[in-house]
Amino acid sequence: MSGSTLGKAFNITTFGESHGKGIGVVVQGCPPGFVISENVIQKALDKRKPGVGISSTKRSEPDRSVIVSGIFNNKTTGTPIMIFIENQDAKSKSYDDIATLFRPGHGDYTYQAKYGIRDYRGGGRASARETAARVAAGAVAQIVLDQYNIKIKTYTLELGGIKAVNFEDISQKDTNDLQCPDLDAADKMIKKIKDIKKEGDSLGGVVEIRVSNVPAGLGEPVFDKLDADIAKALMSIGAVKAVEIGAGISASQMTGFENSDQILPTGFQTNNSGGILAGISNGDDIIARVHIKPIPSILKTQVTIDVEGRPSEISTKGRHDICAIPRINMVCESMMAITLTDHLLRQNRYFLSVL
Amino acid sequence: MSGSTLGKAFNITTFGESHGKGIGVVVQGCPPGFVISENVIQKALDKRKPGVGISSTKRSEPDRSVIVSGIFNNKTTGTPIMIFIENQDAKSKSYDDIATLFRPGHGDYTYQAKYGIRDYRGGGRASARETAARVAAGAVAQIVLDQYNIKIKTYTLELGGIKAVNFEDISQKDTNDLQCPDLDAADKMIKKIKDIKKEGDSLGGVVEIRVSNVPAGLGEPVFDKLDADIAKALMSIGAVKAVEIGAGISASQMTGFENSDQILPTGFQTNNSGGILAGISNGDDIIARVHIKPIPSILKTQVTIDVEGRPSEISTKGRHDICAIPRINMVCESMMAITLTDHLLRQNRYFLSVL
Amino acid sequence: MSGSTLGKAFNITTFGESHGKGIGVVVQGCPPGFVISENVIQKALDKRKPGVGISSTKRSEPDRSVIVSGIFNNKTTGTPIMIFIENQDAKSKSYDDIATLFRPGHGDYTYQAKYGIRDYRGGGRASARETAARVAAGAVAQIVLDQYNIKIKTYTLELGGIKAVNFEDISQKDTNDLQCPDLDAADKMIKKIKDIKKEGDSLGGVVEIRVSNVPAGLGEPVFDKLDADIAKALMSIGAVKAVEIGAGISASQMTGFENSDQILPTGFQTNNSGGILAGISNGDDIIARVHIKPIPSILKTQVTIDVEGRPSEISTKGRHDICAIPRINMVCESMMAITLTDHLLRQNRYFLSVL
Amino acid sequence: MSGSTLGKAFNITTFGESHGKGIGVVVQGCPPGFVISENVIQKALDKRKPGVGISSTKRSEPDRSVIVSGIFNNKTTGTPIMIFIENQDAKSKSYDDIATLFRPGHGDYTYQAKYGIRDYRGGGRASARETAARVAAGAVAQIVLDQYNIKIKTYTLELGGIKAVNFEDISQKDTNDLQCPDLDAADKMIKKIKDIKKEGDSLGGVVEIRVSNVPAGLGEPVFDKLDADIAKALMSIGAVKAVEIGAGISASQMTGFENSDQILPTGFQTNNSGGILAGISNGDDIIARVHIKPIPSILKTQVTIDVEGRPSEISTKGRHDICAIPRINMVCESMMAITLTDHLLRQNRYFLSVL
Repeated sequence: MSGSTLGKAFNITTFGESHGKGIGVVVQGCPPGFVISENVIQKALDKRKPGVGISSTKRSEPDRSVIVSGIFNNKTTGTPIMIFIENQDAKSKSYDDIATLFRPGHGDYTYQAKYGIRDYRGGGRASARETAARVAAGAVAQIVLDQYNIKIKTYTLELGGIKAVNFEDISQKDTNDLQCPDLDAADKMIKKIKDIKKEGDSLGGVVEIRVSNVPAGLGEPVFDKLDADIAKALMSIGAVKAVEIGAGISASQMTGFENSDQILPTGFQTNNSGGILAGISNGDDIIARVHIKPIPSILKTQVTIDVEGRPSEISTKGRHDICAIPRINMVCESMMAITLTDHLLRQNRYFLSVL
Repeated sequence: MSGSTLGKAFNITTFGESHGKGIGVVVQGCPPGFVISENVIQKALDKRKPGVGISSTKRSEPDRSVIVSGIFNNKTTGTPIMIFIENQDAKSKSYDDIATLFRPGHGDYTYQAKYGIRDYRGGGRASARETAARVAAGAVAQIVLDQYNIKIKTYTLELGGIKAVNFEDISQKDTNDLQCPDLDAADKMIKKIKDIKKEGDSLGGVVEIRVSNVPAGLGEPVFDKLDADIAKALMSIGAVKAVEIGAGISASQMTGFENSDQILPTGFQTNNSGGILAGISNGDDIIARVHIKPIPSILKTQVTIDVEGRPSEISTKGRHDICAIPRINMVCESMMAITLTDHLLRQNRYFLSVL
Repeated sequence: MSGSTLGKAFNITTFGESHGKGIGVVVQGCPPGFVISENVIQKALDKRKPGVGISSTKRSEPDRSVIVSGIFNNKTTGTPIMIFIENQDAKSKSYDDIATLFRPGHGDYTYQAKYGIRDYRGGGRASARETAARVAAGAVAQIVLDQYNIKIKTYTLELGGIKAVNFEDISQKDTNDLQCPDLDAADKMIKKIKDIKKEGDSLGGVVEIRVSNVPAGLGEPVFDKLDADIAKALMSIGAVKAVEIGAGISASQMTGFENSDQILPTGFQTNNSGGILAGISNGDDIIARVHIKPIPSILKTQVTIDVEGRPSEISTKGRHDICAIPRINMVCESMMAITLTDHLLRQNRYFLSVL
Repeated sequence: MSGSTLGKAFNITTFGESHGKGIGVVVQGCPPGFVISENVIQKALDKRKPGVGISSTKRSEPDRSVIVSGIFNNKTTGTPIMIFIENQDAKSKSYDDIATLFRPGHGDYTYQAKYGIRDYRGGGRASARETAARVAAGAVAQIVLDQYNIKIKTYTLELGGIKAVNFEDISQKDTNDLQCPDLDAADKMIKKIKDIKKEGDSLGGVVEIRVSNVPAGLGEPVFDKLDADIAKALMSIGAVKAVEIGAGISASQMTGFENSDQILPTGFQTNNSGGILAGISNGDDIIARVHIKPIPSILKTQVTIDVEGRPSEISTKGRHDICAIPRINMVCESMMAITLTDHLLRQNRYFLSVL
């Protein structure tokens, strides 16, 4: 019933607020015997830390993760793995302004409506900081996926309306700050970010996730379809407003003949399905895209109301990210890893090996 | 672990195959005391029955639903409600052709990969017929929503690439066969359907779901966000390849200032959020859009392989739908109703009234 | 949230009331490829049908089960298996008397308190008839257990205060009407039943369940321990008031030295643990005992109140069972089979075979 | 699937090992607005700390709890409450002896069989230390129960075979070290403990839990019955080998007339049901008893095997508890509080108040 747990065979429970003592995750269902270290988790966390990408401010938040349980002699034991990330600057800021104001585009109003109380400091539980716990869990999931050689690539397809058009060589994403495989587009995106920053505004964009070597057979019809669970996992990231699988939106404009991936003895001719048919993986690359809204915390003045319903104005001063990309890319990748690991283990239960 | 159950406080479990004895649903968690009749469920089922809309063939499948349990003296008792729909023509057809062939765009290949066995008759469990059980459950959910005066409208935004541009008066959707509020667009869609039928091909489209009178406060952070659960519920419908919430895809191209719904004492100025902020309803209309792929069963010849991996060809003769719209509209509406009812009851648990 | 579903990897959802259209069960998570027939399920159902055992009345209720879904060409397909048992005499009796009276020892009062409405016919959802659905599901579970050669024996240890003292040869249970391995005790039990029947009263008893060939390693610490899940499964049977594992109650009176099963290279010296240590099976026989209350429907007059709270009297005329034993034995066995199958499949997920 | 989570509407997830960094619990579903402090949790923890009762050794383990998340300005916010208890002496002991030996009566053998790896230090995840996390969660649950004036009393009924016979005044339990309401029996129990200590052996016992002011209507038929969930919660405590509800074992020896609680306008005449009928609370006191095995760590030499299967001997030197009573009493009380709170919130969802 409570929404901070995701997954069934491999599942994660996150806790913590932006400016409380810290945030963390309990990972359940990780099979025993996997080698895992804080180093591996730290590397994943570093990919979403503040300051990553030109679109992010240069605050220093080390985000040091500690493995609290579930590991013995560097190996998973099959028991719950708790990973904790202390909040370093938990008490350093004043939040008097937003204590009584509802920030447009944030959860301030809705948390108040739901619970009648909210931890307003830095967004509290609704802060994007919570996604660090997801990334830590995703690092654990990826270790399981590695056993199958399942690899996930995540890259920027669009930012501020500028589209990557040439992305045949996805590895080019690692040559620029925005994880965009099209370097020309990346240059334009960087310029756009600089321009919008001057205006005190922010940008959104589109991220694609592509997974190779996924075995056919993952996904549980009819509700826990692999694409349904991927959609939920990605849509549960705060800034995401749309999720596509495979041809996605463009599939709705094709004819049946154009869209159906015909089958050759060597495999599917095309991959409009995004590697998923009837909710089950077909062995082709899993492809998903997420559409990300612009950061709602902006310097430009917006009108709002206070908790008493009186009209007011708000402007987010100080440093803030201009775009969730590329920090959000690692969050998307982590949610994909967690979902695939869950379905791998769910599929495993059918194999009745004598213990 | 098993994927045929959806929801937590209000939950549904479906069962059945296209050409077995029948399909059905067990609805758990419906509060006691609601008046419910087979008539109400039948009316909902009639909206998705074959022959609805010009895009659907005129087969006669009555889809008679029977309430098997959970109702006493026409009222819900709080115990599981089982609704069953018998398969009338279960044994009438020959499926020798697809017994050994994998139909492109269908789940034949993936069910075989997952389970090593499949009920190939009419798609078996993967058949769209399963969605009739969802519609029956949705009718139960809507009865609960009625108590809050929560109303759902579902209509066609696009079909075969033709977009509805004028849809201020959504009620116009009831004046045409395709449930499109733009009558000019509807005419063009109908013509497009006739043309593509001659070509032996099929079409996809876009459906929008809009819900009014949803109270603020529904949705459970951080994974069971209302938008995340809506995305899963809608993506779990076979033909859906993308889900948007509110401004959705276009949100990724706005600036923060353009996208953030500023707040007046009278309410939100705009509704780019689609009625959901940080995963919790804000009291505005919930808005979601689904992008639907074209029907994969087409007359045009496609290449495929048989279960032995040998190359073959396939062409779906006989009657088949040209587009899942408008039959799928009622399925989308039902999934929305089920998801909202679940979150209504989940939110209720916080209210500690003495029993 | 809703309580009619049990299990995680292998799970069952039951529905139906005593005098509605019928009762049934949806079994999810049964691996594909198992041969299953209505015959096998019927044989299990026949072991709990009315008229089994001298303690049960000789009504004729055939309890014909129908497999509605999940089976194709006599094999499980991995999709939900729905089994339905029609209520033959659903409308034949008058329940005007208990429509307004609360029967002592039954759920009449509590269902009314919980839901504000109840299907009073024959106990409605609270009827022991619901356990037929459990037995049908147990038959499916046993087919999975057969693959591991896991065998369950269930027998009567005590009835009406008469204890079986000599039960080294459990197979003797099949030679008498009460499934008691001690034939002398069985004779006394039969006499006791006849005597109590004349008094218009009823009896309780004790049933033991013993499972052989359970592999070590089943059970998920720390809450879903194998013994915890067995306790829940057995206590969920209406008449059960106590559950013991292994030495059970007597363990509380032993010293640590007496109770700890010391370990030899050939195995555990004793089995006070009942085959479960720290919630995980240890390879020894699983042993559980359930203590069953006497049938509350008796000819003797009892005082009660009506739905308005006014004092009244009640006496159950007509045929009724004198003791839940031996019909309940098969229900206990089925709950054990379901729980073990669930944990077998849960353990399987750790085995990361490449698909 | 993973067993370290319990409950649905109010649920808890524990993590941690005996000699890792610490243990903790994530509590989900606690309604917002409740005042909660570390003091309240500490008081609960102090009731199960080492050194409580003459049967426990006098080690000093402070068990300081820290609330890490979910609380703001001393009030619950509706978000996950994480409570952490650091392991103070995590690295102080040598466990070389049990690294390779399986202790009889412990989970050493079964954890090894299940996972192929185990954290052997102090029992690792299987240590009774894990129950401290349950007690912390139980303290949160009790705060919710207080709102309904629901009170739980837990006391010792039997220890080392010595039974309390006179316990009409339960408050007498607070006047002695063993929480036994019968002072004469308590004296004999203390003597028995001293005697058995000299023998290098240990003792078990029986604990009763009684809950007053539980509203009628809690419990979800047919599997999540209130008594079934209580049985699971209590049986999931490591040392528990049997659970009784109400008359329990003695119910199996009564006649139907003796056992059925007849109903007067003023309430039930007797309480053999233990406050639960057909799995739903009836408004009377909830009564449960647990039978606890003796501590398996004893000075007396026992035979066992090592991880290679070779015969060996083991004797637990140093301080160890002689009986789990009375420390386990608080664990039992906590599991009852958690289960009742879960069912209270589950029942609440039926109340369709407009938000």
